[in-house]
Formats: sequence, C-alpha cells, structure tokens
Amino acid sequence: MWPPAPRRGRKIRSGEDKTMDVNQEALKLHYDLKGKIEVVARKHIETREDLSLLYTPGVAEPCRAIQRDYEQSFALTRRGNLVAVITDGSAVLGLGDIGPAAGMPVMEGKCALFKEFAGVDAFPICVDTQDVDKLVETIALISKSFGGINLEDIAAPRCFEVERRLKEVCDIPVFHDDQHGTAIVVAAALLNAAKVTGKELGKLKIVINGAGAAGIAIGNLLISMGFGNVVMCDIHGVICQGDEGLNPGQEAISRISNLEHEHGALADALRGADAFVGVSRPNLVTAEMVSTMKDGVVFAMANPTPEIMPDEAKRGGAAVVGTGRSDFPNQINNVLVFPGVFKGALAVRAREITEEMKVAAAHALAALVPPDKLDPEFILPSALDKSVAGAVAQAVADTARKQGIARA
Amino acid sequence: MWPPAPRRGRKIRSGEDKTMDVNQEALKLHYDLKGKIEVVARKHIETREDLSLLYTPGVAEPCRAIQRDYEQSFALTRRGNLVAVITDGSAVLGLGDIGPAAGMPVMEGKCALFKEFAGVDAFPICVDTQDVDKLVETIALISKSFGGINLEDIAAPRCFEVERRLKEVCDIPVFHDDQHGTAIVVAAALLNAAKVTGKELGKLKIVINGAGAAGIAIGNLLISMGFGNVVMCDIHGVICQGDEGLNPGQEAISRISNLEHEHGALADALRGADAFVGVSRPNLVTAEMVSTMKDGVVFAMANPTPEIMPDEAKRGGAAVVGTGRSDFPNQINNVLVFPGVFKGALAVRAREITEEMKVAAAHALAALVPPDKLDPEFILPSALDKSVAGAVAQAVADTARKQGIARA
Repeated sequence: MWPPAPRRGRKIRSGEDKTMDVNQEALKLHYDLKGKIEVVARKHIETREDLSLLYTPGVAEPCRAIQRDYEQSFALTRRGNLVAVITDGSAVLGLGDIGPAAGMPVMEGKCALFKEFAGVDAFPICVDTQDVDKLVETIALISKSFGGINLEDIAAPRCFEVERRLKEVCDIPVFHDDQHGTAIVVAAALLNAAKVTGKELGKLKIVINGAGAAGIAIGNLLISMGFGNVVMCDIHGVICQGDEGLNPGQEAISRISNLEHEHGALADALRGADAFVGVSRPNLVTAEMVSTMKDGVVFAMANPTPEIMPDEAKRGGAAVVGTGRSDFPNQINNVLVFPGVFKGALAVRAREITEEMKVAAAHALAALVPPDKLDPEFILPSALDKSVAGAVAQAVADTARKQGIARA
Repeated sequence: MWPPAPRRGRKIRSGEDKTMDVNQEALKLHYDLKGKIEVVARKHIETREDLSLLYTPGVAEPCRAIQRDYEQSFALTRRGNLVAVITDGSAVLGLGDIGPAAGMPVMEGKCALFKEFAGVDAFPICVDTQDVDKLVETIALISKSFGGINLEDIAAPRCFEVERRLKEVCDIPVFHDDQHGTAIVVAAALLNAAKVTGKELGKLKIVINGAGAAGIAIGNLLISMGFGNVVMCDIHGVICQGDEGLNPGQEAISRISNLEHEHGALADALRGADAFVGVSRPNLVTAEMVSTMKDGVVFAMANPTPEIMPDEAKRGGAAVVGTGRSDFPNQINNVLVFPGVFKGALAVRAREITEEMKVAAAHALAALVPPDKLDPEFILPSALDKSVAGAVAQAVADTARKQGIARA
C-alpha cells in the first residue's frame, strides 16, 4: 500500500541544505517510475506498409532466414545486443534470500545500468526456484532469446554449479557478475594500487576476506594474473589446503592459494600483507590490524558499511583505500566492468567470456587512469564515467578475436 | 549472410508506381533495425544520487516493500505493465515448426504491436522445448517477472494443455492469442455482420472450417455468446459428436456444436448456413458453395491466401466478406484485440482473463463501428486504429471489476 509507513534509512546530503532519507526517496521514485526499464518499438507502426513489413506477411522472410542459418538470429532480432539479467532471488544485495519478485528492483536497476553505460539492452528474469537442475534447465531453455546471460545475486555455492553447467549447454556467454565482474574491477584497482605504491606485482601477499562467490572469483583471477600469494579467509579464519568443511569452490582455490600454508585468524593473515580485499561484513578490520600490513592497500567493499571505514584505515597507515561506496574516493564498483564486458562479447558474438577476456578487461580498465593522474585517491575511473564501457568492450572484443572465438 | 540470394515474394503496391518485393524489403528492414524492440531506461543515470536511488543503496527499500507485500511488485517494477510473449516456435505463422530462434521475428513484431497500440510493454521469450511439462514448468518459473503471459504460435493440441495448466499455476493472466484473440475479433465481426444483414443472432448457422487452436476457440466463444448452431469442420469434413480420432478439444466442442448432428463435407455444411468462418487453407471454398448459403457472411481468414477470394465470394452472393488481409475491406486481425485485452487486465490487476471479459471485449470492439457507418464493407475498425485498444481495455477492466476479480 502506498504511502507505506515511514521507515528510517541512511541520510544522504543532496545540495546545500536539503537532506533526505535515501530509502524513502528511493521508494517514492520507484512508485513514481513504475519500473526502471521499458520495452519500446524501434520503429513506429503507423501504416499498412509498416504492418506488412514488420509483421505479417513480411516477417516470414527473416524467420526463414534464421531457419536456414541460425547465426542470423543475432542480426535479425534484438538478440545480438541483448543480455538477460537472471536471478533466483537467493542472495540479493545484503538482503539475502528474498525471492524472485522482491529481487526484481535490483535486476531492473542492473538492466538500466547496462543500457545507460553501454547501450546494451538488458532484460530482467527472476526464476522462481532455487533447485540447481531446474534453474539450469529453465535458463537454458530460454537462452535462445538472448545474446548473453548475466547471472545475478545467486547464492554460493549453488552459483558455481549453475554457471558451470550453463556454460556447457549455452551457445552464448554466461557470466556471473557477482563473481567475475567483482574480480575484474578488484584486479584493475589492484593493478593501479600497486603502481601507486611501487609494489612489485608478482610478489604481493593479498588477503581476501570472504570466501563466497565474489571472494573466490577474485582469488582465482588474481592468482591467474600472477599477483603473488593470495590468502583466503572466511568466518573461521585463514583457509588452508586440507581444511575440513570447505565447499568445492573453496577446496579448489585452497590448492592454489595460501602458498605458505598459514593458519590463524584474519588478523594473523594481515600481518605483513600488501593488500586486503574485503567482500565480507562491516567493521571486521581495525586500524591496528592495518598497521601490521606493509604499506597496506585496503579494499573494504562490504556494503553499505565497509570492513573498515576509510579514515580508520588511513589512521592505521593504509597507503591506498577503496570501498564500494560512491561517497569516498576509489569506488570499486562492478558497473565499471559488466556493461563493457558484455558490449565487447556481443559485438564480436563471442561464444563465451574467457579468462583472457577478463584479464584484458582488468588491464583496459586500469589503463583508463592516465599515469599522470594516478594517485592514492584516484586508482579507478568514476563509476559514472560513460566512456569506460567502450574501452573495456574494445579490449574484450580484441581478445576474443585473438583467441579465435569471435563469430562476427 | 547479407545480402542473401534474391528470393521471390508477394508483390505489394506502395504509392503510385513503386512496386517492391515484400519479402526482400522486410528482410532488409530487419537487418537495418537489428531488432524491432528495445529495452531502455525510464530514467537516465547521470549522477551519484541517481545511482543511489535507482541502484544501491536505495533499491533495497523497494525490494523490502515487495518482500513484505508481494502485490507491490506490480507497482514498484515494470511488471504491472509487462506481458511476456512466449512461443515454442512450433506453429509460427504459416511456417510451421521452425524452432525458437527462427520464431523470434514474429514474437518481436507482436511485442512492438503491444507497445504501439496499447502502450503495454511486451517482451519475447522463445522456449527451446516442445515438451508440455517442460514448457509449463519453464513459463511458470519465470512468470513472476511479468504481469501477463501471451502464449503465441504453439501448435494444437499441445497449446490447450499448456494454457490450461499455466492458468492453474500462475497468478497472472495467461492468454493464448491464437485461440482467444482470434475468437474475440471473429465474434465482434459476426456481431456487426449480423446487424448489417438483419440476421437474428440466436438463430445463426455458422460453419467453422479448421478445428485447430483458433477454430475451436472461435466455436467455443460463439457458442457461449449464444450465436446459434456452430458446425465445426476439419480436413475430413463435418465434426459430429462420437466421431473417432478427435483430440480432446475437438471432442469437447463436438458435444455442444453441430446440434442437428449433420455429417458430410464442408460443402454440405455450408448449404443453408448463415456464416462461414475459415481458419484453414487457401482456396477451399468456391463461389458455388457460397451461393448455397443464406445471405452468406464469409470470413475467409487463411493467410496470406484466403479460403476464397473476396470477389469470388461476392460472385457467389456473399452479403459480407472479411479476410485477414489489409488489402481488402473488413480485415479481421487480432491486433484489434490482444493489446486492449491485456491493457485492461493489467490496469485492474486481474488474475485471469475470463469468458466474460472476452465477451465484453467482443461487444466493445463491435460497438466501435458507429451504427450510421456500419456497412457490408465496414464491420470492424481499421487494424491501424490506435483508439481501439483503449475502448477494449475499458470493457475488459470494467468486467473484471464487476466480476470481483480486479485487485487494483
């Protein structure tokens, strides 16, 4: 019912004197907009000729053309520029398992970002099951309506299997953004943070706190990019090969991370570390812990409250601090990544998004901060910079071509 | 590959001297457009405030509002104005079973019509299976992303079961347009044809040729509206209760149609009939057959070539002739129906589209031709008349309210 009972929310300052409640303002805006996306016709239908060319009888010919040559579906329908943003509603933002209908505002927002930042059409689908078999089957069965699939807010460890199996059965790119989009933006941020601090890439000790979907994907990408020794931590502390109770994703990364076979708590792992990457919970890291790091690079990305607030991290001697928030410098937000990654993959009709394409995206994103502008307070372009997607897309498309997996 | 080898197609005349090949023109237009629909953002994202209200952190509040009250999903997301146009690609136009990707141009065209004629957003989904269980499960599992489901071009008799089962499990309207949209527009045309010819509604003998999805739905609706005696024919001739080899839909209608228990061929059935409704194949009806009817109303809707051409039907003495084509008077096209039916159902958040709503739509559509304009050559509004959907929607919404099934 509108208007709903007032609820308290975080205040943001907008303009000089006006303060407003973000939650209430956002709710009102959502009621006013009645949806953040809209499906429109690309050509108006006014005349009989319009009707016969766009619908019957003319439409039969593009149908036949696709029947003869399946690839034409990417050129003759919207499919060639269209991504499905698909969730099961099981891990929506920090809200958790809120179900498919309640997850939709996030999915619509993501679709709006795709269009606004990359010109890529995106359409949200919430699937009303958390059964892996049914999720995979449902998504596979509708996949021929789209050019790519962006999985979103699906809980770990289910998300790993869903993505792996969909990649096997779909002939279009499947990309779980919570994993890979996050990993790419963190890799880009770390590339520039290393430059700023003069750290040698291959010799870093990087502590990742949070061994869910995002944490494991970040770890895997950083390891494959040769950043050095990655140490994964979860709620029980450092993850070491052979630990009991690891899920398959944790078990797999335990074999290539924590090269010194450390044990202990997060605080132990941070001692002497070069970088902290938090995809976990608020207020887990103290200034004292940061002070034990070596010129610490601190990416505290828990939302909305980071693992440590930037001023605290600096008090502890952090050399570079990034968060997920727009109200501090160095916002590490995957909106810098997913629009460009899909734009590039779609442009060349890549069948998948490979490790090499992800690495290229990270380097392209890092390179967007000019060397003379690079600064501890400026390691990534603004999340609102609409030139980013094009550069990321170019790198992704070039890499697909080099790998011989481009079809257009 | 573009340009493809030239193919022959039907010629249409456009303007004074220009002729063109519809098929080639349509194909070129489809390549140029790269999709007939597009997903756009309803509000541009330019500032940090936009991002925090439309995406994180503000988006969490509409999510919570829907979690608390599921009905809010219709007000807080696009769902409230959004129809899925879903096919399995098994009976696309006259092309038959061409599969999901090849069916997409038709589905996109339909979505463009929804938007252009009723302001209803529609999104095409092609499901890559023809297994009834899987179709039903897939559509049900994604149904919470939409406000209504328009089933399209699904072959009979599968379409009956798919629709029936989906209506049981979905909490939004499910409407197979090939059945019910066609039935409603035929009913409206027949209402006005009866007026024009001075025929008494309850005493008509109506012969329907074609006992697939459309034919059976037309029969059922005309019978429920009390048009008189409906006689169904299929390729084997008149369908009579107790005939062998009937599918469940045919068997059901055989019990309420053909009240005189006639047997014989189509030509036999037409003798003394008031109306012919063809949803079958080209050139099945001759002027001589029409001459045996009583002031025959002839709706020859096979596409693109009717069961009998209008001039032939008139030579046989037809009083009113309608076809599916835009190049003859009395185009009987369900674009006059589906945009308004869904617009009305969505406007009041009706859980289903009832028989009463369909009947109301037929009467509203017929009433759009003013009594003083009603003429054998003008029994329906133009398929391009964009005022139709609003009137149909009003009737549908009013009826839902009267029936107590409106939720908004």
